[in-house]
Amino acid sequence: MTTAAALSFNNLTTMTVSIEHHIAHIQLSRPDKLNSMVPAFWQELPSVVRSIDEHSAARVIVISAQGKHFSAGMDLSVFENMAKDFSGEPARRAERLRRMVFELQDSFNALETVRMPVLAAVHGGAIGGAVDMLSACCSRYCTQEAFFCIKETQIGMTADLGTLQRLPHIMPHGLVRELAYTGRNLSADEALRCGFVNQVFSDPIALLEGVMSIAKAIAANSPMAVHGCKDMITYARDHSVADSLNHMATWQAGMFQMPDVHTAIQAQKERKPPQFDELHTRFSRL
Amino acid sequence: MTTAAALSFNNLTTMTVSIEHHIAHIQLSRPDKLNSMVPAFWQELPSVVRSIDEHSAARVIVISAQGKHFSAGMDLSVFENMAKDFSGEPARRAERLRRMVFELQDSFNALETVRMPVLAAVHGGAIGGAVDMLSACCSRYCTQEAFFCIKETQIGMTADLGTLQRLPHIMPHGLVRELAYTGRNLSADEALRCGFVNQVFSDPIALLEGVMSIAKAIAANSPMAVHGCKDMITYARDHSVADSLNHMATWQAGMFQMPDVHTAIQAQKERKPPQFDELHTRFSRL
Amino acid sequence: MTTAAALSFNNLTTMTVSIEHHIAHIQLSRPDKLNSMVPAFWQELPSVVRSIDEHSAARVIVISAQGKHFSAGMDLSVFENMAKDFSGEPARRAERLRRMVFELQDSFNALETVRMPVLAAVHGGAIGGAVDMLSACCSRYCTQEAFFCIKETQIGMTADLGTLQRLPHIMPHGLVRELAYTGRNLSADEALRCGFVNQVFSDPIALLEGVMSIAKAIAANSPMAVHGCKDMITYARDHSVADSLNHMATWQAGMFQMPDVHTAIQAQKERKPPQFDELHTRFSRL
Amino acid sequence: MTTAAALSFNNLTTMTVSIEHHIAHIQLSRPDKLNSMVPAFWQELPSVVRSIDEHSAARVIVISAQGKHFSAGMDLSVFENMAKDFSGEPARRAERLRRMVFELQDSFNALETVRMPVLAAVHGGAIGGAVDMLSACCSRYCTQEAFFCIKETQIGMTADLGTLQRLPHIMPHGLVRELAYTGRNLSADEALRCGFVNQVFSDPIALLEGVMSIAKAIAANSPMAVHGCKDMITYARDHSVADSLNHMATWQAGMFQMPDVHTAIQAQKERKPPQFDELHTRFSRL
Amino acid sequence: MTTAAALSFNNLTTMTVSIEHHIAHIQLSRPDKLNSMVPAFWQELPSVVRSIDEHSAARVIVISAQGKHFSAGMDLSVFENMAKDFSGEPARRAERLRRMVFELQDSFNALETVRMPVLAAVHGGAIGGAVDMLSACCSRYCTQEAFFCIKETQIGMTADLGTLQRLPHIMPHGLVRELAYTGRNLSADEALRCGFVNQVFSDPIALLEGVMSIAKAIAANSPMAVHGCKDMITYARDHSVADSLNHMATWQAGMFQMPDVHTAIQAQKERKPPQFDELHTRFSRL
Amino acid sequence: MTTAAALSFNNLTTMTVSIEHHIAHIQLSRPDKLNSMVPAFWQELPSVVRSIDEHSAARVIVISAQGKHFSAGMDLSVFENMAKDFSGEPARRAERLRRMVFELQDSFNALETVRMPVLAAVHGGAIGGAVDMLSACCSRYCTQEAFFCIKETQIGMTADLGTLQRLPHIMPHGLVRELAYTGRNLSADEALRCGFVNQVFSDPIALLEGVMSIAKAIAANSPMAVHGCKDMITYARDHSVADSLNHMATWQAGMFQMPDVHTAIQAQKERKPPQFDELHTRFSRL
Repeated sequence: MTTAAALSFNNLTTMTVSIEHHIAHIQLSRPDKLNSMVPAFWQELPSVVRSIDEHSAARVIVISAQGKHFSAGMDLSVFENMAKDFSGEPARRAERLRRMVFELQDSFNALETVRMPVLAAVHGGAIGGAVDMLSACCSRYCTQEAFFCIKETQIGMTADLGTLQRLPHIMPHGLVRELAYTGRNLSADEALRCGFVNQVFSDPIALLEGVMSIAKAIAANSPMAVHGCKDMITYARDHSVADSLNHMATWQAGMFQMPDVHTAIQAQKERKPPQFDELHTRFSRL
Repeated sequence: MTTAAALSFNNLTTMTVSIEHHIAHIQLSRPDKLNSMVPAFWQELPSVVRSIDEHSAARVIVISAQGKHFSAGMDLSVFENMAKDFSGEPARRAERLRRMVFELQDSFNALETVRMPVLAAVHGGAIGGAVDMLSACCSRYCTQEAFFCIKETQIGMTADLGTLQRLPHIMPHGLVRELAYTGRNLSADEALRCGFVNQVFSDPIALLEGVMSIAKAIAANSPMAVHGCKDMITYARDHSVADSLNHMATWQAGMFQMPDVHTAIQAQKERKPPQFDELHTRFSRL
Repeated sequence: MTTAAALSFNNLTTMTVSIEHHIAHIQLSRPDKLNSMVPAFWQELPSVVRSIDEHSAARVIVISAQGKHFSAGMDLSVFENMAKDFSGEPARRAERLRRMVFELQDSFNALETVRMPVLAAVHGGAIGGAVDMLSACCSRYCTQEAFFCIKETQIGMTADLGTLQRLPHIMPHGLVRELAYTGRNLSADEALRCGFVNQVFSDPIALLEGVMSIAKAIAANSPMAVHGCKDMITYARDHSVADSLNHMATWQAGMFQMPDVHTAIQAQKERKPPQFDELHTRFSRL
Repeated sequence: MTTAAALSFNNLTTMTVSIEHHIAHIQLSRPDKLNSMVPAFWQELPSVVRSIDEHSAARVIVISAQGKHFSAGMDLSVFENMAKDFSGEPARRAERLRRMVFELQDSFNALETVRMPVLAAVHGGAIGGAVDMLSACCSRYCTQEAFFCIKETQIGMTADLGTLQRLPHIMPHGLVRELAYTGRNLSADEALRCGFVNQVFSDPIALLEGVMSIAKAIAANSPMAVHGCKDMITYARDHSVADSLNHMATWQAGMFQMPDVHTAIQAQKERKPPQFDELHTRFSRL
Repeated sequence: MTTAAALSFNNLTTMTVSIEHHIAHIQLSRPDKLNSMVPAFWQELPSVVRSIDEHSAARVIVISAQGKHFSAGMDLSVFENMAKDFSGEPARRAERLRRMVFELQDSFNALETVRMPVLAAVHGGAIGGAVDMLSACCSRYCTQEAFFCIKETQIGMTADLGTLQRLPHIMPHGLVRELAYTGRNLSADEALRCGFVNQVFSDPIALLEGVMSIAKAIAANSPMAVHGCKDMITYARDHSVADSLNHMATWQAGMFQMPDVHTAIQAQKERKPPQFDELHTRFSRL
Repeated sequence: MTTAAALSFNNLTTMTVSIEHHIAHIQLSRPDKLNSMVPAFWQELPSVVRSIDEHSAARVIVISAQGKHFSAGMDLSVFENMAKDFSGEPARRAERLRRMVFELQDSFNALETVRMPVLAAVHGGAIGGAVDMLSACCSRYCTQEAFFCIKETQIGMTADLGTLQRLPHIMPHGLVRELAYTGRNLSADEALRCGFVNQVFSDPIALLEGVMSIAKAIAANSPMAVHGCKDMITYARDHSVADSLNHMATWQAGMFQMPDVHTAIQAQKERKPPQFDELHTRFSRL
């Protein structure tokens, strides 16, 4: 049923991946290090996400974490490496830094450009870079004790990996600004009220159960229809409604086809789950 | 007081229209068919809305529905007609479909481009195409038992008539995505919390009373001032603040004039309702 | 510690300014006139804000008001002056009005372009132009009895100084539209629920204490980091995420430097407050 | 071969239409009135263009004119009608004028949104509104004695039907500005040098022959491929390259199909003209 | 006839200003220093331009230069001042530099935002910052021996005051890039062919005569109509055609009025020059 | 002097690469196959370009071709592979095609995103995909007998790899449209007149000599300054002038530094070529 076997998710050091029933589950797996984002993480995350997109039968991705906290954000080793390298002619150093930021941002962009939805299940703290990552997910869910923190401001720098770019589309601006300027924690309750998370669960087990049940509902739908939803909503965030309606119609011209509609309607009549084709992988050879 | 008599709203088959005290009331009128959107609906809605805009003294439009549900969305007959016609050279079929989507989208765009506000009063279910329509209204109100559903995903297609383009501007993205990917129902309570509806009423009678009272408050204001508000808020959604401020100032250059201000201030002094001129119809002959 | 002494805030007639502990406090000071916005106000506000930006050690600005109400908005004398001047060839009058609107808008734009955050503490009524002003602040806080009102619609004109341009980015569109079309009051409770204010306090004293405590938390952070947050969030509101990520990386190329990070981390280790350099003033001479 | 018979082009008063060999030829037909744009013109042009688009086998449109001049632009009767109607409360008059400008602009927008290319063949003068019209055509060709003039400036108004919006995309800005500010004539030679026209012919007969020969070359290609080119180039003018590439790929997903490619390649092998299917008309019934 | 007397253009050190017959003539007046851009220049230029806009009867501005060359661009003293000041914490230094660039850019932006057209008459060399300035003018004219040079690249920096932002809208991109990457001279002939200048004259006297004659033609038109052209063309450069048409119609709603049209038509009938009202200055008192 | 040795350009099958004196020279190397774009080409081009960017000392890239023609565009084998694969459920096939187009477009996007300028030297024919590629280069140069052709239209499809997106920014729209709709050849003379190429040379030897001499002039400048020019001009094409000026100032904050300016000025004083540091490669390890 899944092609996980065919995918080389064995040598990962910062996360584990399993794919079952069309749901890919990525778990941050350095609990004793608070799942901090070490250099390997920045390579593994986009590579894993793109592999799932290209080669698997997954129709939705769930991200959660092992241990007490979701993630402490950027590992200090990254800063230390950078500090060592922070020398030379200042214009070239600045240009190098600019490209490094682009590269790190791209690791999280992968969550946005992958064709299937990405749901995040958060317990404990999600700090600094973790908020950048969560902002690039489709929807967020958390436990009662979870908290979120734009920590970067408190260590003397401006968060640069997506938080300040995506949060203003996700929660009220007045609150985004307070959180960013102060670097204070956002509690689960506040996160629910402001729309940053969709639902709050009592504990990590209830959380994962709840999120998996939503993932299951998504995986039961046509992956083409769901992919279209994701592409359209992201597009709408960044374009005018007129442009977005044009994009919708142009997309639909090729992507609306009868087979999935027939499958869905037939299954509803017969009261059994519909069986949709997978999303296609690439053309065999360019 | 109204020009309803002069307007030919007699031959409508999917809705009724009445205009009183500057309020136009459109009611979906196929309750036994769940107000599903048959071919006639797609012609009548924009035609009715544009007639109200051009020829009536209405200053606000209220949309409600007869029967148990607001609307079941697209009527299956539309899909069936389409299926019959879904043949021929595939590029030309795709191009034809693209234009059909544009045409359907335009039916709802009319709600956005009409000069007066459009308030929606929803009871029962608002399914599929009904959510597209509600997204193009200015403000939404509902009863306690109402629910909303992006049903398209569950029948194997991506909703294409405005829902995915406009909802991200109306409610938190994380929730929009969950609703679109799963196709689940949104309850009245959730709709209120997330800002999709402004207010929840106990039952259809209280709902219509409540919405009419808001409509009345709007109709008491200068229709020029209100039209400006509508144009500005829609413009702001699709442009930067800098562009929107420019649009505002350019608009105001011609649209701010003393007569309405005098009328309003004088009426406040005399503690009686102000009498404003109607919005103008077109230049007599081009 | 502050350079307030060096700044000429003595001749102000519509507000007072004090700067302490890196916090600039602007207070509207015509309580018996409901802090209405007289001609002098429109000159003093941007001038004060730009002076604080250029010449002071302030890292955050708090705006509050003396008396029973925050502000009654535009003073009638402005309209009366305008009415006197509202003559001559109508095209040129319109052009002149357009530029006057630009000029008034610019007074509030100053709140957005100043490098440090601006927090508003509101008690009593904030009417008409006051809502335009509050929309240009970073975050808003209020007392339980506070209320907000887009009064312009009720006096026959379209609000033109930022409310209709900025509110749709701050609270749900459906509510913005109802408030603008009707001109009704928004209560503190509703303002909190919809995200217009971040927090509601019991009374003016608790309010100012609460806001000052948030201001203090902001002032304790690196002013460079905080300035970056403000620039990024405002930029993100008006641009696509892709453009905003590019802006972020380009900014960071020059603005990420080690000294502030070292200062912050060192201070955390030593558990004492970090001492950051001030934001720079201009190059000595162009 | 053509469906002209089926189209009601008989009652036109300002232009004639003929459709042959997939080429629709629109000729302005009030030569003794210098083809000035009377009220009927503004209705007939978009109506004719949309009919050709929907109901004919035309794959390209050529616009030319009878008599000594291409067109003298807006007929004075339009101004006179407007002057008569230029009364009433000034805000409402301004709003009415705004909508009238939209309506007139839309007449020329039809040239841009019709699916097939529009080529203009100009001899004699093209004045005022004629330049607005030509700017909305795909390509322009003229005779040696032709000239172009943004006359509006010299009669005390700003040209408002597309010239100032489209010319900056068609010829160097420095020249556009001089022409607009002075209202002077642009000669055929200058028009060729600056790229406003593609080619200059010796006389009206050579002109029409030359343009028809280009039209013939266009009509020999797949109308789907040509329609795609038109949509893409117009889209690219108004969007970033990144957005335009996305639009291209999304379009191509549905619009690239093998039949036309096979037809074209087979025809080239057999050295005979390819026979492509027509563009489709609408879905039979919505 | 002119209000030059009332304007204090006496204390200028880097340019002279005269206003006659509705034409303001700014001349760079440090010929022995090659009209290099010293600190005073950056203050005087925008101040002069805004004064002309606000207080004079000028309807067009002509910029020329005394001496052998138009301008050698940025004076070395500016770099030297900057070098002295180029110290301190590097993030704050970078932020300060960013604001300095904004301020310098604004000096040239004034040429674009002033209501009346700005024509540049260039003889000799226009180097570095001079090209930035010329790019912000409406139209450019030059003598046969004139040349233009993006010198900045050859002194190790990227030109930052508008050249790279505006030239791609003025001349073909392929040429802009070659000029910017190499820093080579652009001759008058090449400048004419690529559309950077509108016309080439034999010598400085013919040049000024020619440009003044164009300025005179502009000044004979309604200043409202001309101002509208300038605003529209600049707007069209930066927006989509759809947005620009909307801006046009919104502008026209207030700015189209009968008096100027009557004046123009009457004058044409009577074959004498029309007498238009001046552009208005500001509302007497805010 | 160059690091070409360290770069693995040995196994290329469709092009050769040499790097000397800071100039990378890419030559299409399948002359007997008319340098048609086979599957390997689409992988090698972006890979080569990115390697040059990351690992070499090149400051400019020159692209030319061996044999009689520059390139015949897409190799038929690509279409044949695609035709074999053009099956399955049509929505998924469309989605797969969309991604394939993105992937092919990205091969040419690499020319635009690489930090150093790319100059194209064209002799003989440049057909179909070759025009897409040339449109993504910075500047184009050709021989007298060269010609360019948007061939796709004549084989029944819309060109989809950048031609229709980038040409409208490079040459007049009226001509772009004629070329795209007809698929006719553009001669060298026409290409020069319309600005598509910067210069025409008598023969391939003169061409390469001429282009190399321009490349040399570029390579003599600071690579940071040149990189800034490239980034700014591309940015300006896709953004408003206001946004582009902001990007410029933000870039300059980090990228303007004294060392290159000192080097350049010192070298000019000493009349010897300046020696600039190379562009930096990435941070050692993320």
